[in-house]
Amino acid sequence: MHDNDAMDPRAAELLGRPIIGQLGFRGLDGYPHVLPVWFEYRGSELLIASPTATYKGRALAKDGRAALSVSTVERPYHIVSVVGDATVEHLAEPERIEFITAIAARYLGPDDGRRYVQAWMKGGHPGDGELIRLRPLKINFYLS
Amino acid sequence: MHDNDAMDPRAAELLGRPIIGQLGFRGLDGYPHVLPVWFEYRGSELLIASPTATYKGRALAKDGRAALSVSTVERPYHIVSVVGDATVEHLAEPERIEFITAIAARYLGPDDGRRYVQAWMKGGHPGDGELIRLRPLKINFYLS
Repeated sequence: MHDNDAMDPRAAELLGRPIIGQLGFRGLDGYPHVLPVWFEYRGSELLIASPTATYKGRALAKDGRAALSVSTVERPYHIVSVVGDATVEHLAEPERIEFITAIAARYLGPDDGRRYVQAWMKGGHPGDGELIRLRPLKINFYLS
Repeated sequence: MHDNDAMDPRAAELLGRPIIGQLGFRGLDGYPHVLPVWFEYRGSELLIASPTATYKGRALAKDGRAALSVSTVERPYHIVSVVGDATVEHLAEPERIEFITAIAARYLGPDDGRRYVQAWMKGGHPGDGELIRLRPLKINFYLS
């Protein structure tokens, strides 16, 4: 981020909650696309796991400009809107399992998270995947 | 839409629920942006009201390619992802009041909707605004 020190603490708090992120990117058709994703706000980056060669992964590998927004569902809406640059990285199976285990617990809680991972693992070898790493250029917080 | 007859009825049902839409567009900075919006799915179009000359309105007037996604907050996530072309139209005050009154009731219920409109009206003259009219090219429904 350009001015990390000036970041609104309410933005960091909201990005730390288990709210679905809305990932915006330029599709392979040239149109903007928006998809809901699980993400983790770690350090100053937003991390999203993905299987290999998904539509969003291929689109972001071609044009890494991306956005992610998070909002509460009740008024007044607390909204964080992030714009930044994303890279798509290989995520080896052990690191992928570790990441998915942590993020499933974050979004679903320990019990449902464990069940989710058991089903996702498909007997122990989910294979390699990808990590989308979004580096924010701008983080705006507002109420609506 | 290209093939309206083939639209998944679950997509229409989900677009009819009062869930915040996530509007994706190309910003004036060239980056994708995502913003939560109230919208109404009417006929085959997605309608979004806006004050005049907002960032999203100016960006969409320049490049009307847009996306809107809606998702439930509980698993399994029901997700509708729309991609299409938007126009930004002038919305005269009487039509604007009518639209905002209906959409506030849709999202907030009759009582909170009425209170919202009373505050928003600022004594009876909120002025003209804009209507963002998104014509879908693709509507995808999926579970995640």
